[in-house]
Amino acid sequence: MQLEDKQNQNGDGHVEAASRVRSADEIFKEFKEHSVTEFFKKNSQMLGYAGKVRSLTTVVHEYVTNSLDACEEAGILPEITVTVKEIGEEKYSVTVSDNGPGIPKAHIGKALGSVLKGTKFHRNMQQRGQQGIGGSGCTLFAQITTGKPVHAKSNTGKEAYECDVSIDIRDNKPIVANMVQLPISQFKSTGLEVTGFFAGVKYENSDHGVYEYLRRTALSNPHAHIVLHAPDGSTVDFPRSVDSMPKRPRALKPHPLGMNVSDLMDFAKASPSRKLSSFLVDSFSRITYDKVDELKKLVPELDFNKAPGELTWEEAEKLVDSFKKVKWLAPDLDALSTIGEKQIELAMRKILNPEFMSVVERRPKVFRGGIPFVVEAGIAYGGSAGTRTSTGTSGNVLRFANKVPLLFDGGSCAITEAVQEIDWKRYGIKNFDEEPVSVFVNVSSVYIPYSGVGKQAIAQEEEIIDEIKLAVMEAARRLQMHLSSERNRSEQASRYKTIMRYVEQLSSDLADITSKNKSEIQKSLTQLIESKYKSLFEDSSKESGQEADVAGSAGEEAEADANANN
Amino acid sequence: MQLEDKQNQNGDGHVEAASRVRSADEIFKEFKEHSVTEFFKKNSQMLGYAGKVRSLTTVVHEYVTNSLDACEEAGILPEITVTVKEIGEEKYSVTVSDNGPGIPKAHIGKALGSVLKGTKFHRNMQQRGQQGIGGSGCTLFAQITTGKPVHAKSNTGKEAYECDVSIDIRDNKPIVANMVQLPISQFKSTGLEVTGFFAGVKYENSDHGVYEYLRRTALSNPHAHIVLHAPDGSTVDFPRSVDSMPKRPRALKPHPLGMNVSDLMDFAKASPSRKLSSFLVDSFSRITYDKVDELKKLVPELDFNKAPGELTWEEAEKLVDSFKKVKWLAPDLDALSTIGEKQIELAMRKILNPEFMSVVERRPKVFRGGIPFVVEAGIAYGGSAGTRTSTGTSGNVLRFANKVPLLFDGGSCAITEAVQEIDWKRYGIKNFDEEPVSVFVNVSSVYIPYSGVGKQAIAQEEEIIDEIKLAVMEAARRLQMHLSSERNRSEQASRYKTIMRYVEQLSSDLADITSKNKSEIQKSLTQLIESKYKSLFEDSSKESGQEADVAGSAGEEAEADANANN
Repeated sequence: MQLEDKQNQNGDGHVEAASRVRSADEIFKEFKEHSVTEFFKKNSQMLGYAGKVRSLTTVVHEYVTNSLDACEEAGILPEITVTVKEIGEEKYSVTVSDNGPGIPKAHIGKALGSVLKGTKFHRNMQQRGQQGIGGSGCTLFAQITTGKPVHAKSNTGKEAYECDVSIDIRDNKPIVANMVQLPISQFKSTGLEVTGFFAGVKYENSDHGVYEYLRRTALSNPHAHIVLHAPDGSTVDFPRSVDSMPKRPRALKPHPLGMNVSDLMDFAKASPSRKLSSFLVDSFSRITYDKVDELKKLVPELDFNKAPGELTWEEAEKLVDSFKKVKWLAPDLDALSTIGEKQIELAMRKILNPEFMSVVERRPKVFRGGIPFVVEAGIAYGGSAGTRTSTGTSGNVLRFANKVPLLFDGGSCAITEAVQEIDWKRYGIKNFDEEPVSVFVNVSSVYIPYSGVGKQAIAQEEEIIDEIKLAVMEAARRLQMHLSSERNRSEQASRYKTIMRYVEQLSSDLADITSKNKSEIQKSLTQLIESKYKSLFEDSSKESGQEADVAGSAGEEAEADANANN
Repeated sequence: MQLEDKQNQNGDGHVEAASRVRSADEIFKEFKEHSVTEFFKKNSQMLGYAGKVRSLTTVVHEYVTNSLDACEEAGILPEITVTVKEIGEEKYSVTVSDNGPGIPKAHIGKALGSVLKGTKFHRNMQQRGQQGIGGSGCTLFAQITTGKPVHAKSNTGKEAYECDVSIDIRDNKPIVANMVQLPISQFKSTGLEVTGFFAGVKYENSDHGVYEYLRRTALSNPHAHIVLHAPDGSTVDFPRSVDSMPKRPRALKPHPLGMNVSDLMDFAKASPSRKLSSFLVDSFSRITYDKVDELKKLVPELDFNKAPGELTWEEAEKLVDSFKKVKWLAPDLDALSTIGEKQIELAMRKILNPEFMSVVERRPKVFRGGIPFVVEAGIAYGGSAGTRTSTGTSGNVLRFANKVPLLFDGGSCAITEAVQEIDWKRYGIKNFDEEPVSVFVNVSSVYIPYSGVGKQAIAQEEEIIDEIKLAVMEAARRLQMHLSSERNRSEQASRYKTIMRYVEQLSSDLADITSKNKSEIQKSLTQLIESKYKSLFEDSSKESGQEADVAGSAGEEAEADANANN
């Protein structure tokens, strides 16, 4: 917000509305330029800073996400401590410390004090953060609510220091102050510790609060040890449940099928290769010289010996079209890191203790032609699954993207949309909003198309929604088998009960007629009936285990299913 | 997306995953800076470019919004023509021309070729656009899908020209090419015409398509004449239904209650005033020297004679606290421009032809302490209200912000949330999702807190949700009266029918007993019954008219209601 020129204003505090037509020259006198930080200062809700509880959760989310990414990239099992202290009315300090690689002194300013600068934005690699906005967004939010810089303390193993970081908002430039060199010997390990001070925020133990966020983060990151020191002085420990590192994230060369014309042009212009042909082989995954020969046949008019920088838009368009006509090996999917079936099962059992569950990890797919992604889905039914509401129980959805819990903006998320599009009646769920069912979905990709800068919802792209639907339907099919066998079971149980009611009378009648011992007749009748209904007396937990294994070919069925739905 | 250094890559096309721990220095070698245009190029879905149909609608939305704003600011009744042509497979050109003030030659590049530059971002004024992103976002989208610049043609009355505009994405700088001076005499009026070429988009007559967008825009902007030339060659004319201009938007000085510490500091630093006291009087609406005296008593330790630039954060904090303790005149609300009760009624009648409707314009309120906003709400029931679904009819919500229809991201919008939070049963709607009801809401403000850059949803701020609820509940209360009188009516009608069934038999029995003429008895009985149920024979359309007028004091009741709900 800027004030108008004084001469335009009247005493009452607003600009006079001229009654005549205003010319373009008059209007454009007020033309100004703004930095991206000014933009986010004015629209901080777009970064997730809307609502007191949500804002505090967003701060923790940004710092913890950065810590997990840093540890994963450095190959370190994460030890993360989150400390939230109440320092005034609706004022809190948040400290997040990790045992990651730390940040070199030369980079601390840009890392925490200016947006769109970082190591993540330009790399084709699966990470939780992908924009270079989160950490500096926290600094911005601290600055506009308490006027205080954030305090950083880092040890990279080569150098250790502490300092204050703030942002020159008008220019999106970092300001580093009070830099103090520290002895490395003072630290137990490398790592980063960031402390920020925030006002207009609130710590609350709700579905959208810090505790719930960390709980879900621990569930989807079993290799991390996370400790929360809450404002009331209590400490919550989320211990590590797996001692091995998840797959190291790797940068991928792009797959030709994922290329649009504009990106191909950018790559070509930036390429050091001398010829178009070697540029293609060097820059893309799956393009070999044999494949280049195939491309040559498809675009005979294109000179593959020309410098890549001389490629025209029309030529690039033809090349992208020809990419679609060649048979390629699928994108290298090895670089995608998932939570894992076993771990999702453990997690769901731990928090939901359901009567039945099933988990599906789909094979990786691509969207927008060639960006690889993979969906994991789980369904839990009964126990503590679903949400308690004033009128009973409702189904709910636990959303994750690259193992990060998504707590907000569910209404505009591809995961929610996919779950809503499913015809739940076909899976034995009469009304999703009235049954004790939880759907767990994690989408992993080198690029998650978030719908907003706050990264709380996945954009509703058709290919992603369809793949999520297939995954959830596959899990739902097993649930349906369970529910129908449960229903069978309860019908059988009621028949069994009815028959057993007659056994006593029938036994004594038969004893009268046959002059045999009544109790023997009763015993053998009971045995007869019990053997007919023997499935009722088996351990039901075994059964659901079997079912979870059964669904080998459920994939294709679900596939056909989805087509029927479209 | 950038490629990694070659030496890090193996032949298979991806970077080798080192198994050892990587140091901070290694990781931060890859640190890079990015422009805001690079960011939006990678995340174009955040600007609304997700989905083929939606992307095309977003283009039209951005251009038409700019045209309406330009005309409104210049005081010109808008004539807007939108032409969409199919130029290839999933390729379209979009041309939007208006009779606005045009854009001076010196500004055309920045207006259409770089983001965060414009006349709107910094002004405290109600406009449809508020960020300086929309128009350049279209240029960016054109560029990354077809590689073509947009073509602009402008006449400001002083100069006329045409040219091509594109963006240097790496630097967020405009590129203006092929500039041609044109004779002003060639134009019928001042104005701007922009043409862009887009691929990967689709024209469709759906709820999210261009036609529906323009239809709703015409409804909420009755002073605009809009013509659509559709790709199939057809022309749709949305004629102007009001010949007067809406209130001219005005820039407002900020109200002290709307100030946070950070903004106050910024204003103080930029102020040319010599003393803090005169700075306060000059910069804010409703602060007089009398009020400054009150503030002095509340913050006795603060020197009101010091230069505003010397204000510290702590002092500013105290000042903002003291603002809250003084009684202020409400913010000047005259600058807010609404659609208007009458016009919403006309609009709903025209499109929904409902059996009943009621419209409420609330008095303006403030959010975040002092940002003025006003809510208009309407409810239509029966007729074509609601949405037809495969299983019947469902309630729907028509959302508008500053008279701009919001077609997307309803799930994360304050308007949707408010409608969902209402206990519809109390208003005679058993299940909102199963009745023919449409809720119309328009929120007007100098600053709409959109949840995303694409401006399709209003952030779920409590104060805004609460006010929308009050408005909708006020309208719903009238609907309830209508529905219960309708239900009364139908109960009476059924009783009437039942009684009439006995008239014939009773008349002949009475005739037998009393020896009187049966037909006379029947006639007088019928008269007797009809007079008792006379309300059934009155004109029902009158009745709903009366009801719409009745609800004078419904406001307070609704107010009490909302509290009960919280």
